[in-house]
Amino acid sequence: MTNKDMFEPRWSRRAAEVGTLPFTGGARLPLSLAYGLPDPELFPRAGFAAASARILSDPAASAAALQYGSIAGHPPLIEMLVERLAQTEGLHVSPANLLITHGSSGAIGLAARLLVDDGDVVLVEAPSFVGALSILRRSGAQLYTVPVVASGLDVAGTESVLQTLHRQGVQPKALYTMPTFHNPTGLTLSLDSRVALLEVARRYNLVIIEDDAYRDLYYDSAEGSLPDSLYALDEDGRVIRTGTFSKTLAPGLRLGWALARPEVIERMMLLKEEGGTVNIAQHLVAEFGRDGALDAQVQTLVEAYRPKRDAMLNALESYLPDEAAWTRPAGGFFVWVTLPPSIDPPELARCALEQGVDYMPGAICFPEPLQPGNPTYLRLAFSLLSPEEIVEAVKRLGKAMRQTLGSAK
Amino acid sequence: MTNKDMFEPRWSRRAAEVGTLPFTGGARLPLSLAYGLPDPELFPRAGFAAASARILSDPAASAAALQYGSIAGHPPLIEMLVERLAQTEGLHVSPANLLITHGSSGAIGLAARLLVDDGDVVLVEAPSFVGALSILRRSGAQLYTVPVVASGLDVAGTESVLQTLHRQGVQPKALYTMPTFHNPTGLTLSLDSRVALLEVARRYNLVIIEDDAYRDLYYDSAEGSLPDSLYALDEDGRVIRTGTFSKTLAPGLRLGWALARPEVIERMMLLKEEGGTVNIAQHLVAEFGRDGALDAQVQTLVEAYRPKRDAMLNALESYLPDEAAWTRPAGGFFVWVTLPPSIDPPELARCALEQGVDYMPGAICFPEPLQPGNPTYLRLAFSLLSPEEIVEAVKRLGKAMRQTLGSAK
Repeated sequence: MTNKDMFEPRWSRRAAEVGTLPFTGGARLPLSLAYGLPDPELFPRAGFAAASARILSDPAASAAALQYGSIAGHPPLIEMLVERLAQTEGLHVSPANLLITHGSSGAIGLAARLLVDDGDVVLVEAPSFVGALSILRRSGAQLYTVPVVASGLDVAGTESVLQTLHRQGVQPKALYTMPTFHNPTGLTLSLDSRVALLEVARRYNLVIIEDDAYRDLYYDSAEGSLPDSLYALDEDGRVIRTGTFSKTLAPGLRLGWALARPEVIERMMLLKEEGGTVNIAQHLVAEFGRDGALDAQVQTLVEAYRPKRDAMLNALESYLPDEAAWTRPAGGFFVWVTLPPSIDPPELARCALEQGVDYMPGAICFPEPLQPGNPTYLRLAFSLLSPEEIVEAVKRLGKAMRQTLGSAK
Repeated sequence: MTNKDMFEPRWSRRAAEVGTLPFTGGARLPLSLAYGLPDPELFPRAGFAAASARILSDPAASAAALQYGSIAGHPPLIEMLVERLAQTEGLHVSPANLLITHGSSGAIGLAARLLVDDGDVVLVEAPSFVGALSILRRSGAQLYTVPVVASGLDVAGTESVLQTLHRQGVQPKALYTMPTFHNPTGLTLSLDSRVALLEVARRYNLVIIEDDAYRDLYYDSAEGSLPDSLYALDEDGRVIRTGTFSKTLAPGLRLGWALARPEVIERMMLLKEEGGTVNIAQHLVAEFGRDGALDAQVQTLVEAYRPKRDAMLNALESYLPDEAAWTRPAGGFFVWVTLPPSIDPPELARCALEQGVDYMPGAICFPEPLQPGNPTYLRLAFSLLSPEEIVEAVKRLGKAMRQTLGSAK
């Protein structure tokens, strides 16, 4: 007897609340500026093929790569990160400061599980990375926003929010922030603001989750070096920095890491529930990365993404209407465009689709629905398309904007 | 100024409660019966090497394998599972019934997040799979036990527990069970008991999480076919069955799956927080598995593990003292040994180490500390060692038992 009606699953609260897919990677239109996908032409296919062949032709190496691994991560991979942080940032950490995770999303998820009980408050930038917002929400966090201004996170605004919450007796568990090549705005917080932010965090005893996914993709190194990470500047051990190989090597590896003081790393490790992060991918990256191949790969990426960034900025200058403003990122994958509130986002999206181009509506990147009267925002990714395609896509987008502005007048 | 004392992290409750590592895969003594690790000699190294070379030498195939993937899983891999379930079990499912996960632990974790709010009751067998106990606990579940008898899960005992809880106004969210080649006991629940269990689940409106990690490793198929899975017998859509490639292919892939009705799968998918399961491993397995290579691999494993199982059962007969009793598993990786309560577990462990052998103390597999007066239990894994090593290990274990029994008298 079938008896389907009798079965009433009682979901957990978090399961009852999830409603839409957070991310549907892969699907795209011919000219899409919507997704922050790395350019697959730049995947280090030959290097991976060689590394994979070396591992799988060796009985001991393959036995180790295919077996369960240690929960903290493959030691040579961790060692590689330790050495690279020292070389590229002068940042000296020990293996006990690192945990390999299932992408940087995995690291953010573990940080959330480490800190958040149902209803706890976590501060996020408005706008912020959509994926992180959904991870934090699903951990049970209540999200409060701190403002982002033209120079990045607004430290004074963040302090006001903390003061207000403090007066209400609310102590946020953490601030999630992306100070370097921010997703979606592309902005980078200055050194002074970083130091000031850490000072505020100290006064309010706030943990900072620093999402550092894009640091390696810095296109303007000729103009000076990047400000140190919050993790590097932190003197209290209050920063959990997350990183990823998704942008520098390949998202399909699903490998990221967390960088924090050893007690935090140990506790995050205890919260991992999947019997260790995918071992075969860790061995592949460690084998690939011997003799500095990761540095060479990063150099290749910087040389390939810089002209894309430049193509986009030039095309925006040429083709966007005067009403539009945008950021000029020094790295990462994204430009953030601001349009007058008179532009109706659904109407713009419709016109853009008609022109054969799409983008990520900026409103998605805010944890709360944007109120009427706010500007209309767009996130444009320049990572996936070729410079020529980017020019064409921006040209079409400009047309769509003019159409929408025309109909709004 | 360093100011470490000022920083007082306030962990989440679950983070405050985790204390010990659930699993430390990899580390082992020369003759260890402790870990349920697959034999690395049986990893399909050559097949993986060929599949990996095919993918990475092809621009389109490698671009797809290295990019972000779909959250549900790589469609050809899901299709392979659909076909294999039909061929090996006569079980007809659609791709919408399947979700690829980060090992079967990932599937259990998602099922827990789907169902469990802090403090909700989940029933587990006593004893049960250690990894699942810790996943369920960290999801916030309160674990109540149902008894395991010589024939596996005790259906009548389970019903009593449900009755008692019902009278107390407690409705458990789920039962987590491993009816086939149970970890740690090696027992398989009969068809009649499965049908009876589903009937009880229907009466109490209970979701069942069926951990089916070992089904393929059936060594006695000459004696008849395995009973259908709870998922296959279920008429209400109340079973979430979990599976894994860790035992048949390699744990280092970290690939498993959940099998459930589409509404459940969809909701589990929405709870995935890591931007999709490791894509490169999914492409590797799908490529490897074309033309039936997975079936051939399973056949190889069955032929290789059967003599190990037989070696262990024969050695137990030859070398264990009369006071010992043990299960006779028809598949999987484990034998469960019972000794009189007079044997002190730490003393036995000490003697065993002295003899150069180790095992998993059975007490670990119970969600509650075992009371004095209970038998002393051991879980022995026959998966990793060669038949000759197994014989030697059991011989040493027998010596250790006799020593401990002697000192107990």
